[in-house]
Amino acid sequence: MNKSIIRYILSRVLQFEGVFMLLPCIVALIYGEKHGLYFLATAIVSFALGTLGGLIKPKSTVFYAREGFVTVSLSWILLSLVGAIPFVLTGEIPNYVDALFETVSGFTTTGSTILRDVEYLSKTSQFWRCFIIWIGGMGVLVFIMAILPLSGSYNMHLMRAESTGADVGKLVPKVKNTAKLLYGMYISISCILLILLMIAGLDLYNALLLMFSTVGTGGFCNVNASLGGFSHTVQVITIVFMILCGINFNAYFFLVMRKPKEILKMEEVRYYLGMLFVSTAVITWCIRGSFGSLYEAFHNAIFHAASIVTTTGFALTDYEVWPMLPKAILIMLTVVGACAGATAGGIKVSRFVILLKVLKRELEKLTHPRSVKKVRFNGQTVSEDTVNSIIGFLIAYFFVLIISFLILSINGFDFTTNITAVLTTLSNVGPGLGGVGPAQNFADYNMLSKSVLVIDMLAGRLEILPIFVLLYAGTWKRN
Amino acid sequence: MNKSIIRYILSRVLQFEGVFMLLPCIVALIYGEKHGLYFLATAIVSFALGTLGGLIKPKSTVFYAREGFVTVSLSWILLSLVGAIPFVLTGEIPNYVDALFETVSGFTTTGSTILRDVEYLSKTSQFWRCFIIWIGGMGVLVFIMAILPLSGSYNMHLMRAESTGADVGKLVPKVKNTAKLLYGMYISISCILLILLMIAGLDLYNALLLMFSTVGTGGFCNVNASLGGFSHTVQVITIVFMILCGINFNAYFFLVMRKPKEILKMEEVRYYLGMLFVSTAVITWCIRGSFGSLYEAFHNAIFHAASIVTTTGFALTDYEVWPMLPKAILIMLTVVGACAGATAGGIKVSRFVILLKVLKRELEKLTHPRSVKKVRFNGQTVSEDTVNSIIGFLIAYFFVLIISFLILSINGFDFTTNITAVLTTLSNVGPGLGGVGPAQNFADYNMLSKSVLVIDMLAGRLEILPIFVLLYAGTWKRN
Repeated sequence: MNKSIIRYILSRVLQFEGVFMLLPCIVALIYGEKHGLYFLATAIVSFALGTLGGLIKPKSTVFYAREGFVTVSLSWILLSLVGAIPFVLTGEIPNYVDALFETVSGFTTTGSTILRDVEYLSKTSQFWRCFIIWIGGMGVLVFIMAILPLSGSYNMHLMRAESTGADVGKLVPKVKNTAKLLYGMYISISCILLILLMIAGLDLYNALLLMFSTVGTGGFCNVNASLGGFSHTVQVITIVFMILCGINFNAYFFLVMRKPKEILKMEEVRYYLGMLFVSTAVITWCIRGSFGSLYEAFHNAIFHAASIVTTTGFALTDYEVWPMLPKAILIMLTVVGACAGATAGGIKVSRFVILLKVLKRELEKLTHPRSVKKVRFNGQTVSEDTVNSIIGFLIAYFFVLIISFLILSINGFDFTTNITAVLTTLSNVGPGLGGVGPAQNFADYNMLSKSVLVIDMLAGRLEILPIFVLLYAGTWKRN
Repeated sequence: MNKSIIRYILSRVLQFEGVFMLLPCIVALIYGEKHGLYFLATAIVSFALGTLGGLIKPKSTVFYAREGFVTVSLSWILLSLVGAIPFVLTGEIPNYVDALFETVSGFTTTGSTILRDVEYLSKTSQFWRCFIIWIGGMGVLVFIMAILPLSGSYNMHLMRAESTGADVGKLVPKVKNTAKLLYGMYISISCILLILLMIAGLDLYNALLLMFSTVGTGGFCNVNASLGGFSHTVQVITIVFMILCGINFNAYFFLVMRKPKEILKMEEVRYYLGMLFVSTAVITWCIRGSFGSLYEAFHNAIFHAASIVTTTGFALTDYEVWPMLPKAILIMLTVVGACAGATAGGIKVSRFVILLKVLKRELEKLTHPRSVKKVRFNGQTVSEDTVNSIIGFLIAYFFVLIISFLILSINGFDFTTNITAVLTTLSNVGPGLGGVGPAQNFADYNMLSKSVLVIDMLAGRLEILPIFVLLYAGTWKRN
């Protein structure tokens, strides 16, 4: 394990966090909030420590996959540990574990909250809370790669460990340029949404916060009523952009390159939109009686289906009161998630499709033992390495689910609350059912449970295996 | 697909069912119940149809794995379809879907019931209900193989498709003799239990029923209070035999062969007993306040842990009122199940252990790409075919779980009820939580849900893939 290069990159991460934290300071300046001082202090210390740690260049540039996984895992942990400090210093979230829960929920674009009253927060903290979603959405290391003059073999390993989905497609031959392209598209979509939200009547501050949360598919909101507190137009714009941000960003690359036919070839996008369509139709039908018009039922159905499948987690209404089938569909969408290579969480549509094809191959083998079939996806053969990593993911997911559920059960909460709390954090969605439903929060869990959910959110965002690699003793053995 | 041989074996199955059904007729004769006439009529028709269907010998003896899967799946479906008829004819379970649910629940050793009042049934029907658990426990086709003068390549394929666990170990070179040995041990254990129960004060009838249900790890009981209606001694005997019947029967073979050291080498048995021990300890600690003495808490803890992990499903008390952690552990045990090669259901301890080892291998590959490691279990290398079939099983399990859960949600029941109903039927346990808890039953589900649960019970008993093979279009294509 090349520890010196990991130390070097972690130092860079600290520097960047210092820079990121200057933005809430500006917000504090504009609104004349003292809270900004605590952010400034944390920013300075973070930047200084990062600069110190980066003074000595790494001895060796050897960087393999395991260094990639460890670096990415530790970066996210470090970002969260430091990012939580201002919440404690301002006294708004006095308990550090609570502050960490909220920060990890932001960075991992989960959107679960331990706050009973969100509106109580200062504008500065509100800004930081939503801004970290935007940073976490596309990935911190991808961002650093895009703008830092780093080059070498480690770009690919970092990108692979941080990106979502089983297979990382390079858009252009150089990873660095792929990172730049991804961030270019991310910023473009963000700007378009920002402008639309302002046209729809929001001021810059509110538009920014909603944009961060939507594009990053996070789900934090500075209003207790979540999206229910915004106008119908804003809700419609949010629906469209949630759906867009659940699509593999490769699609936008093809759009920019004027190759729309390539988008149609993307199996995952077809399944994703199909699933969204069917879910919306069934939910609309089930809840039609609870609303004044069929349109209103449809609006609520598509809003929540989009909010959950893209793992954003906004709510319009307390869907806890809906019949069971729509809620069951929302739980199913929680587990599945949206496309790989987007800002969304969950197991991902592509993994499900590939798993189904692996199952089909297995049935084929059982019934026609001599047949040798390859698994194909998007018109290309899926390598056995990719298949194995998806299977590793599935097994790890299963075990994390069971163990987290058991630990959460030490609390007095019921089965539904505990199991959906684990599923919603593992998928980075936000709300669950029961005690963690859309009108509830995670405040009442004890510190042990909150810590487990923090790990689940991180495991979910990094797609579990990097966290397992970090904790696996074999990783740290010399070769 | 060699349909003629499938037809031939199915005919044999019908004949055997006719013979099996004569036993409840004898019970009816002893207790002077008219219900026996309906059983006799069904038995005669079943035997006659089977004899008719078996008149023409199969054209070809070609028999591959797919014929094995299809034959086993269809045999179990046929057994259940016919076995349900007497319940409808006697008028005790007037609805055929309900009768089918009860029959499948018996044959698959699940023990879930749609009966609100079990004691209302005639002694004849009670007998049939528990007797089919005993038949299903070791496998119907294994039984037929053990006593019919059949030989040929299909023995292995049938055995593999019907046995529980990922890898079928032949005890002796000939499959036919293995089947005989397995049934020999099964009958021996049954006789010992029967004698012990009679020494403990039960009459032959009650001892027989309880023995069928315990050795088959089914969980049907002719008393509404389940095992709560029996003496402490009977409860203790039941605990011991449930645990014994969750152990891979290979262990008893080694015992008979006087090779006790081989038993110690069986990883699965160690993990199974370890899991049972830890679960019992934690549950005892959690429920110690609800009972008069620590021993009583322990007695209840080990009873329910053993009842659930062996997928029997007896209950002493309504554990629904316990704290969440013991209930969560029982749900976890429901999913895991006991050992392969026993009469128990569930995913099986061996599959979990092998999956963990596959995950470890994947982590090893991610961190040390050049390392090539084999998965080892019980001191032997697990073939890639076995690993793949376990993974196929896991994927299929995941999909069956999600789809069944969605369909069940059409009912008005809550999340906990629906998800545990699916888990408990898929694992052939019996009770779940909430509306299907130990003091409840499955009567209130609608016919669609009951049909789904019938499929889940069959899928669980046959370990899912045979049912998938049956439904997979590719199975029926010509080579």
